Amino acid sequence: MKEYNEYLRMVNDAISNLRLPARPAGLYDPIRYTLDCGGKRLRPVLTLATCHALGREPITAIHQAIAIEMFHNFTLLHDDVMDKADVRRGRPTVHVKWNEETAILSGDAMLTTASMLLDIKVGDHIQQAHELFNGSAMNIYEGQQLDMDFESRTDVTVEEYIEMIRLKTSVLLGCACGMGALMADAPMETQIRMFDYGVNLGLAFQLQDDYLDTYGNPETFGKAIGGDILNDKKTWLLIMAMNEDTTGTIRSLLGPTSDPQTKIRAVREVYNSLSLPERIHELISAYIDTAIKSLDYIDLAPEARTLFMDLALKSASRDK
Amino acid sequence: MKEYNEYLRMVNDAISNLRLPARPAGLYDPIRYTLDCGGKRLRPVLTLATCHALGREPITAIHQAIAIEMFHNFTLLHDDVMDKADVRRGRPTVHVKWNEETAILSGDAMLTTASMLLDIKVGDHIQQAHELFNGSAMNIYEGQQLDMDFESRTDVTVEEYIEMIRLKTSVLLGCACGMGALMADAPMETQIRMFDYGVNLGLAFQLQDDYLDTYGNPETFGKAIGGDILNDKKTWLLIMAMNEDTTGTIRSLLGPTSDPQTKIRAVREVYNSLSLPERIHELISAYIDTAIKSLDYIDLAPEARTLFMDLALKSASRDK
Repeated sequence: MKEYNEYLRMVNDAISNLRLPARPAGLYDPIRYTLDCGGKRLRPVLTLATCHALGREPITAIHQAIAIEMFHNFTLLHDDVMDKADVRRGRPTVHVKWNEETAILSGDAMLTTASMLLDIKVGDHIQQAHELFNGSAMNIYEGQQLDMDFESRTDVTVEEYIEMIRLKTSVLLGCACGMGALMADAPMETQIRMFDYGVNLGLAFQLQDDYLDTYGNPETFGKAIGGDILNDKKTWLLIMAMNEDTTGTIRSLLGPTSDPQTKIRAVREVYNSLSLPERIHELISAYIDTAIKSLDYIDLAPEARTLFMDLALKSASRDK
Repeated sequence: MKEYNEYLRMVNDAISNLRLPARPAGLYDPIRYTLDCGGKRLRPVLTLATCHALGREPITAIHQAIAIEMFHNFTLLHDDVMDKADVRRGRPTVHVKWNEETAILSGDAMLTTASMLLDIKVGDHIQQAHELFNGSAMNIYEGQQLDMDFESRTDVTVEEYIEMIRLKTSVLLGCACGMGALMADAPMETQIRMFDYGVNLGLAFQLQDDYLDTYGNPETFGKAIGGDILNDKKTWLLIMAMNEDTTGTIRSLLGPTSDPQTKIRAVREVYNSLSLPERIHELISAYIDTAIKSLDYIDLAPEARTLFMDLALKSASRDK
């Protein structure tokens, strides 16, 4: 096995070597801009690491890995249009830097390009690779739709929330791991176990994201803290508080405010009074445990197991 | 061979039998609404007819045919958002009936669904089917981008315009025919000839569309006449007029007007003075001839040849 950063370098090299056409610039420049965002590249790294852990050279899965990264970046691009988000990773979003039409059309082209990348050197796995990829894509759209539906609902349950983040975020991490296993010619059971590992890792990852948005250190987290609170975003924390806060405080705090810092502090106090920071970490730990248990069913070299365990544990304790 | 309407019935049956999930309704209802638009279904009919003409049952290509129809409807959905069009075929567009986020996300789901349909019973042709489909999709995005780029340019040449409509509109008709040939196991040369037939048919089709938008009968055309003129849309007619009108009349007519009917009449007079209605029909006939010549290289039964010739000739003389 290699270090995370070595897989990351392979991914970044493959992305810089993508030869997208120069023209029309209005179509392809926004794609280059979007891919040039840096980021952890967690999904393609998972694909390469899984392929490697299961006995094949990581390069075997490189095109499928960047297909998934391309798809992920496409979803961010269209989500930013839908959410009217102006900034991503410290840079103006595509619909701000160019315009909305460009963001829609370039996103469409990224989705088709992802599908084209998936086919490169995929060999006999082509049908299964498409099934995994397209099935995951449909789940992700369903998750995004549920997320939008939740905005206008006040009765979202915790179970519904977990199902939404499973679809919207976690399935793609499952897909990334499953794709690596498929490209390594692993048996179906191994593919499924690695898919499950990725899904549970993804649930932990997203819940930690929710936690950090409210409790993170603004200096390490890289964006303003409290955005979810100010948007009344129905995260696990808010849904739990709405269920359990019998004083009515949390509902009285919802809605627009002229004093954002006071609202953030007050909501956080309700969360603290219900021990939600501790309880979300118990939930995160449970998902990490489930992720790691999936690995028990697979015959992994000790160093491969260590890498996947570390990844899971780091997701649960990251501060950015 | 069957009549056009028999292939159309097969397409409509297959579309009604698509089992899209019920929920989330916000994702899948707009897809059902979009597919329920009626329309000529020219592209999937071409796929079935080509497959049949080349010796296989048309049903062999049914999933690939509706994959192309799904893709086509996806492009209309996203184009309507980009163009801020409120009405399509007499009904409110998705972003009007629902909202823009819904239109973007449902469109994305249609593109992925098209890719899934393409794989059904595609057998050994999977890699080639994806190459044809994805390559055509990229061309279509490029054409849409050029179309948007042309809006802010005043120096668009006729050659650039033809290249734009080739990419944006014609390639998908080529893809529809090529896909039918592929699914019929036809040799590569036949696939290419049928692709070329479709592309030239598409060029004739789009030019006739441009003609009808300015000279059509509003009762048969089904939408208001003169929309392109009022938007200063750079069609073949306007580009030719800008090139050849030495009086400066056409340029003086561009821009917003408080009297749309007078502008439409005045622009039409310039077109008439340059004999553009006759000349666009010469050009359309030339593309139809080229389309029909492609058929000469293929060993087609007489009745198959008749169907494709009729389709081409009807495209050039249709009034709706």
